Amino acid sequence: MSRNEITFRHATRADLPSIVCMLVDDELGSQRERYEDPLPQSYYAAFEQIDIDPNHELVVAELNGEVIGTLHLMFLPSISVQGSLRAQIESVRVDRNHRNHGIGNEMMKWTIERARERGAHVVQLTTHESRADAHRFYERLGFKASHVGMKLSLK
Amino acid sequence: MSRNEITFRHATRADLPSIVCMLVDDELGSQRERYEDPLPQSYYAAFEQIDIDPNHELVVAELNGEVIGTLHLMFLPSISVQGSLRAQIESVRVDRNHRNHGIGNEMMKWTIERARERGAHVVQLTTHESRADAHRFYERLGFKASHVGMKLSLK
Repeated sequence: MSRNEITFRHATRADLPSIVCMLVDDELGSQRERYEDPLPQSYYAAFEQIDIDPNHELVVAELNGEVIGTLHLMFLPSISVQGSLRAQIESVRVDRNHRNHGIGNEMMKWTIERARERGAHVVQLTTHESRADAHRFYERLGFKASHVGMKLSLK
Repeated sequence: MSRNEITFRHATRADLPSIVCMLVDDELGSQRERYEDPLPQSYYAAFEQIDIDPNHELVVAELNGEVIGTLHLMFLPSISVQGSLRAQIESVRVDRNHRNHGIGNEMMKWTIERARERGAHVVQLTTHESRADAHRFYERLGFKASHVGMKLSLK
């Protein structure tokens, strides 16, 4: 397959509609996001908090000037493991029209390299137990499914 | 059982030896921590980063003026779920001499209330798949084991 190069950059406020559009276009996301014009203000408020914090990187992947993927990379200082830095990935999405072309793989490789650059000792993430394809995808990248991810809803 | 009240507060630098002592006293922790006098400088460096960040709360539980438990509570802004705040718990430990007295339960109830106060929509954590007792403990508190926790070591 030949194609143009994917580039990565930090998201700007203007990318939020593209990001939310990808978050909502998903079996789980469709139940909890609101993709409207204008977007609910809560998305912008969260963006501001992420944008000012150097331990958070909201990332978009672009192909030919179009946003086709997103992920949220965060760096978490920790006392454990001798005070090591953890990298954590949340909210990984690839645009529906660009799936199954290896883009998720490139996004993860970029992210792992970024975590390494910043000195993280581990990259961690959780995926819903129903996402069997995602588990295989991350295992191919070297992730081990060593933990159980537990959530308590407060709303 | 009657006993004095457990109190909670943010950890100070002076609590680090007690915290690391609890982290190392564990099947997994014993392989990755270094409880020495003085403690390796990396623990203090991590503490400074946690201490200055209002989205991180390193917490100790005290009984009669003695530190008997610790956990690291973090608040993670997120675009997903309409820009909701997530609370995440890491590095939960109870001193070996005080286990099986409901202290972990009180620590978690305090933490869940704290997450609620700060407006988090979810509390999330992962536990090693080998910690079956921990899974039952968190399920009794209302957590759902809905996710697979995956880790990639970079060292």
